Amino acid sequence: MSPDTGLAPASGDAVASLVETLKARFGERVSTAQAMRDSHGRGEGAGPPAAPDAVVFAQTTEEVAEIVALCSQRRVPVIPFGAGSSLEGQLDAVRGGISLDLTGLDKILEVNAEDLDVKVEAGVTREQLNAHLRDQGLFFPLDPGANATLGGMASTRASGTNAVRYGTMREVTLGLTVVTASGEIVTTGGRARKSSAGYDLTRLFVGAEGTLGVITELRLRLFGVPERITSGLCQFDSFTNAVEAVSAVIQMGVPVARIEFLDTLQMQACIAYSKLDELAAKPTLFLEFHGSPASVDDQIEQVREIFDAMGGGAFSWADKEEDRSRLWKARHDAYFAARALAPGTQSIVTDACVPISRLAEAVEAAARDGEKSGFACPIVGHVGDGNFHVMILHDGEDPDAAKRAKALSDRIARRAVEMGGTSTGEHGIGLNKLAVAREELGASAALMRTIKDALDPHSIMNPGKTLPV
Amino acid sequence: MSPDTGLAPASGDAVASLVETLKARFGERVSTAQAMRDSHGRGEGAGPPAAPDAVVFAQTTEEVAEIVALCSQRRVPVIPFGAGSSLEGQLDAVRGGISLDLTGLDKILEVNAEDLDVKVEAGVTREQLNAHLRDQGLFFPLDPGANATLGGMASTRASGTNAVRYGTMREVTLGLTVVTASGEIVTTGGRARKSSAGYDLTRLFVGAEGTLGVITELRLRLFGVPERITSGLCQFDSFTNAVEAVSAVIQMGVPVARIEFLDTLQMQACIAYSKLDELAAKPTLFLEFHGSPASVDDQIEQVREIFDAMGGGAFSWADKEEDRSRLWKARHDAYFAARALAPGTQSIVTDACVPISRLAEAVEAAARDGEKSGFACPIVGHVGDGNFHVMILHDGEDPDAAKRAKALSDRIARRAVEMGGTSTGEHGIGLNKLAVAREELGASAALMRTIKDALDPHSIMNPGKTLPV
Repeated sequence: MSPDTGLAPASGDAVASLVETLKARFGERVSTAQAMRDSHGRGEGAGPPAAPDAVVFAQTTEEVAEIVALCSQRRVPVIPFGAGSSLEGQLDAVRGGISLDLTGLDKILEVNAEDLDVKVEAGVTREQLNAHLRDQGLFFPLDPGANATLGGMASTRASGTNAVRYGTMREVTLGLTVVTASGEIVTTGGRARKSSAGYDLTRLFVGAEGTLGVITELRLRLFGVPERITSGLCQFDSFTNAVEAVSAVIQMGVPVARIEFLDTLQMQACIAYSKLDELAAKPTLFLEFHGSPASVDDQIEQVREIFDAMGGGAFSWADKEEDRSRLWKARHDAYFAARALAPGTQSIVTDACVPISRLAEAVEAAARDGEKSGFACPIVGHVGDGNFHVMILHDGEDPDAAKRAKALSDRIARRAVEMGGTSTGEHGIGLNKLAVAREELGASAALMRTIKDALDPHSIMNPGKTLPV
Repeated sequence: MSPDTGLAPASGDAVASLVETLKARFGERVSTAQAMRDSHGRGEGAGPPAAPDAVVFAQTTEEVAEIVALCSQRRVPVIPFGAGSSLEGQLDAVRGGISLDLTGLDKILEVNAEDLDVKVEAGVTREQLNAHLRDQGLFFPLDPGANATLGGMASTRASGTNAVRYGTMREVTLGLTVVTASGEIVTTGGRARKSSAGYDLTRLFVGAEGTLGVITELRLRLFGVPERITSGLCQFDSFTNAVEAVSAVIQMGVPVARIEFLDTLQMQACIAYSKLDELAAKPTLFLEFHGSPASVDDQIEQVREIFDAMGGGAFSWADKEEDRSRLWKARHDAYFAARALAPGTQSIVTDACVPISRLAEAVEAAARDGEKSGFACPIVGHVGDGNFHVMILHDGEDPDAAKRAKALSDRIARRAVEMGGTSTGEHGIGLNKLAVAREELGASAALMRTIKDALDPHSIMNPGKTLPV
């Protein structure tokens, strides 16, 4: 459910005049059909859509600049839209306005294999990029569950299962092309691996959720496909031991590429959904090792020692690509597997991220809260980063259940903040986390507001999101 | 030489009244002695000092807030000062005002060994931090040549020889305590390894060179001391082959911890200064490998194969700590060794950083330019990052020589920008690179200015620096 943002809708006359102008300019690439507006008025999160007044499909940076300039002149909100897979209400048109669909900006502009970088348009998805790179021995590691657009991933500062080794969108974004709130085109960053040339505008737009401008192009770091990739999983009898084994691996500095936790209920869901009949419904760690053959052997040995000491079972290994793909497809489908546990229910997904020394405590407390709530609450986690997701499955038609689910989500988020962590490791604030973010950000929220007001003086860029009021 | 910034000095009455107030409050911790003012009116770069009107020695974040608030009320500039080792004129008081000496903020506030993070005050130096960590199996890897303060390192987005593996201050800074231009205390970031909670204020202040606020505390990532550390060096007959060997190592993804280039003239200087009589004055790579024993062996094997193919000579190895220390002390003393080549001269140090595929071309062209100039121009480089420094040794008393040295420096910087790189990999813009930065930053400079004006409306924070006019 979207909180009441108290924002007035854009002026009806301004919107009508803008839509007329846009239709004259872009023809059928402007839609005011209800179904199109509804599909663009929400992401993957719970709650009803807040539909924009119109959807415009842009195809170039210059078109985006033209559209934003028109919105700016008329003070009409503009909400950038990619794959529609964000989870925190980032796409809800709380003041109406224009949903700016960027999926037409789908070109891979440059691949520099020697420098391990790529330039893409914002509507390119992570799977599209990796399909393009497949024959070049290169890959882009970041993988949120959805096949999100890279512009969207930058805007929410997304990460996924590989972040423990390769970083998040903060680390892998070298530069951006951005359309500002007045419709100007600005490039940030460059191709050097490091720079001290002025303010870090790249990282200001990464994570700004479209509230400071529209990202239209990204220059990203790539990585060479490792000589050897080995995936494996290890099941534990004890939930706590599984999580503490992860903390030990990270503290030892073993450079694992992926280390993912799934609790008993989540494993039960995955076994059913992805037909993993060989596995038991027990706390499980999915791992992947990247490197030279010697380095992978070395990493595996270090991890086995730790897991043995923590009561982990035998490893199941997947060296072949099809076996690895099956394993990671099951992990990526965890969200859908979980939703299939209770068909027809809504899901709130928490996104707490804590210092690694507090991880076991945080996950255990969340699990206890989940049990007490009576909701089905499977847990998965990018535990190498201290980040875990509790999926709170509840009857969205029952206002009391929705309220209790939201309260549970807030409690888990607040506890992470109290532990020195954050309410959101990778999903963003959007609308849904505004209240918790107010507490988390403290006095720095006022600095954020000052920057917002300076860069978007008419408050047209995705209004109502990210900035606590 | 400082360019003419065209900035009016602060009002004499306002300064006099401020200094009186500060003396009443801080007593002997306020100095208007000429020698003290001169020593605080410049860094390590070329050119005469631009002295502040007074120097104030703060000891706590609260005192910094009080001092900045007083400066803000009277519209008097305030220039944060750490070790005084910056190279681009960052410390010159071009409008007079207060030099705010932060070396009294010298406490290490928290070490969290389990989470590999530390909280320090801004005046703590990198050597002080590592001495404190020595017994805990932890270290902080970033090492600019000087024993800089960590606040200063964050402000210039510094790095050093380990950045190829561990990143720069951008990557290792988890959060900050900052005093804003109005004298408010704000904390940014947190202890989680990743977060999507709002704008990345931490990275906005990192690299802002004190123009947006004063960093008073930092939360930094630490790293476990690797199980094995092996240093070595390899000499080449061919300058080009040495640089291209580095590009190959990076492109292969070998996780070297350090890979540093020194050209023939720089080696000649180091052999004389650091008594490395066993070495020849030839293009040389200094390397270091970190990891488990198996992983270090594996890295060394990969590097040897590449170096053999590029005509590298036999490796000299240093496994023992005293031998390693001798090697890296020689590398860290390269600046002083180079200055000893031509005693009494001034030095301009370039800081170009280019995509790795352009590195050999960039370094060769810089070397040719250096030869043509007639100046002694030794070259060292953090070449794994594409970053290299040409030291242009010239007679600072001769205006024509100073002008030609600056023109050479600008030419090398501009070429890096044309190659898709940056004029400054780790030193910052300060005063000296304002003209080149204007070209490099293009339209994004206006965005930087908007942010500056919003966060520092009276332009008191280190005025005249970083932002091209």
